[in-house]
Amino acid sequence: MSLKKVQKDVEEWTSQFNVQYWQPHEILARLMEETGELAREINHKYGPKKKKESEDAKDLSDEMADIIFTLGCLANSLNVDLDEAWERVMDKCYKRDSQRYERKK
Amino acid sequence: MSLKKVQKDVEEWTSQFNVQYWQPHEILARLMEETGELAREINHKYGPKKKKESEDAKDLSDEMADIIFTLGCLANSLNVDLDEAWERVMDKCYKRDSQRYERKK
Amino acid sequence: MSLKKVQKDVEEWTSQFNVQYWQPHEILARLMEETGELAREINHKYGPKKKKESEDAKDLSDEMADIIFTLGCLANSLNVDLDEAWERVMDKCYKRDSQRYERKK
Amino acid sequence: MSLKKVQKDVEEWTSQFNVQYWQPHEILARLMEETGELAREINHKYGPKKKKESEDAKDLSDEMADIIFTLGCLANSLNVDLDEAWERVMDKCYKRDSQRYERKK
Repeated sequence: MSLKKVQKDVEEWTSQFNVQYWQPHEILARLMEETGELAREINHKYGPKKKKESEDAKDLSDEMADIIFTLGCLANSLNVDLDEAWERVMDKCYKRDSQRYERKK
Repeated sequence: MSLKKVQKDVEEWTSQFNVQYWQPHEILARLMEETGELAREINHKYGPKKKKESEDAKDLSDEMADIIFTLGCLANSLNVDLDEAWERVMDKCYKRDSQRYERKK
Repeated sequence: MSLKKVQKDVEEWTSQFNVQYWQPHEILARLMEETGELAREINHKYGPKKKKESEDAKDLSDEMADIIFTLGCLANSLNVDLDEAWERVMDKCYKRDSQRYERKK
Repeated sequence: MSLKKVQKDVEEWTSQFNVQYWQPHEILARLMEETGELAREINHKYGPKKKKESEDAKDLSDEMADIIFTLGCLANSLNVDLDEAWERVMDKCYKRDSQRYERKK
């Protein structure tokens, strides 16, 4: 029940338009653009280029939500169920990767 | 109630380990790696390099979930509430971007 | 003798400053940002978002040069010789990948 | 005379094949993939995931050359002269950005 809302919100918003979803490569390019904006904010906030504190806190989380929006578009356009994929990823964590990192004593 | 579960699942899994979250730049590098894997799958499935149909359908959605997992780590490590950010993004869609794309007649 | 000039130009420019090169993860984040800007321009020029022709032709090649500049910084900061790496890549093409793509008759 | 050789090497290699260059969005996706591989190596070498020293030194520079190869493909396919773009970027450094960073005393 987690990522269903993301996909539904995206579907409702995009359903208003003539071209509901771009082509996969076009959405991917948009994903790169959004990821690049997150990278810029991380360099501002935690790297060599400083900005004002107040401004950044909002930007960083918004860039993350923009990436999720873009993934929502890609998922909807390809009929992918992100909740199912999420279950598989968490399952892989608890099985395949369970010995990958050093555990607390 | 949408992205809360993603953040909670990530928190539960990572809380087992000595180093719960990497540094922001390190998580960002991981995000690039995961985004690159999605790009490779999109070129396989919709671009010039063909793979078997069965294999790809799963890979593509799993790569998307891996990106969301990495964003969950970044969000948790920075105390970002993704649901709040999501609401801001959807709000921006309906306000700022409402005239940006050609609407259905 | 090809990429030497890129590395030398970058070295000359950066040698003026107190902090000559950022840390590898910081340069990598900058590379993501520049790659994202190239992605945006490609979506403008060849994708769903149209801009003016004149403006784009310049932008696209400049974004590519910005990526090369960022790689020049990373290479210099890590004492990497890009010409040597280039020779290895071309060598790999002619050996490992020589049967990878369909040849002209 | 710097990046001309890169573009010429790429042209010679690709001219053997039926499809000499992919579409811009497809080359961009490849660029993401290669950038992601560089990110993975940087996390291995300078981040939380350690690998053997010997192995990494080579990988990192090769990933950088792979990115340059991909840019060479994009430039050739779009008739971009990277040397001209490079001159513009260096020119921008010495003019627009000349006061951007703290100079040595």
